[in-house]
Amino acid sequence: MPPDPPFAAPPPPPYYAVIFSSRRTAGDRGYAAMAERMNTLAAQQPGYLGFESARGEDGFGITVSYWASPEAIRAWKEHAEHLLAQEMGVREWYEHYDVRVARVERAYGGPTGALHPPAWDAIGGAGG
Amino acid sequence: MPPDPPFAAPPPPPYYAVIFSSRRTAGDRGYAAMAERMNTLAAQQPGYLGFESARGEDGFGITVSYWASPEAIRAWKEHAEHLLAQEMGVREWYEHYDVRVARVERAYGGPTGALHPPAWDAIGGAGG
Repeated sequence: MPPDPPFAAPPPPPYYAVIFSSRRTAGDRGYAAMAERMNTLAAQQPGYLGFESARGEDGFGITVSYWASPEAIRAWKEHAEHLLAQEMGVREWYEHYDVRVARVERAYGGPTGALHPPAWDAIGGAGG
Repeated sequence: MPPDPPFAAPPPPPYYAVIFSSRRTAGDRGYAAMAERMNTLAAQQPGYLGFESARGEDGFGITVSYWASPEAIRAWKEHAEHLLAQEMGVREWYEHYDVRVARVERAYGGPTGALHPPAWDAIGGAGG
């Protein structure tokens, strides 16, 4: 088992990840409070499996949220309060961001033990 | 187009992402030099599409590398010099880490323009 937060602990794959890479604008501009509110709200959504986030002193950060399905991701993206936060993100908080939606196929952890040991052969045929 | 580094600029999906979440041990222990060497070496591997990394003051960080296929990821994982680095990671550098291999299905950016606009319907049937 991974340690508590900041590590997420989704179930074994498959599941989905939203990789959100961003560079913040200068100053808070209400960001910290909204981010905390969005984390709380996301955790209440159906299909939510956890999230992880790191941001360096240069303002560049990566947040990954984990979800049971693409439908769960879409529902969260279209949540009314989240739409307001996204609008603020576009207008105020981010110099740039990239969003990637990905299907997690394998997961393992260390150094104290494997979450779900590698099984390359199982996805060897999944390459494009 | 996203701005230069720290943002990666892989081609349109599908492609693969390796999400590496970790908490560092205290002190450098040779980590910074090896990380720089691994970044340089990874960029020379077939199928490498870029990487992004952020680490906060609490020592928790997320690195995402992008690859053309699972085979490219496997080849990099088994690269001799990278194996040494992984061994050092287990022994010296990480209190804990999780690795997730995921297939990126959609990608878009903002606020200045979409990399690859959302197309939910295209993956609506991909959920497990």
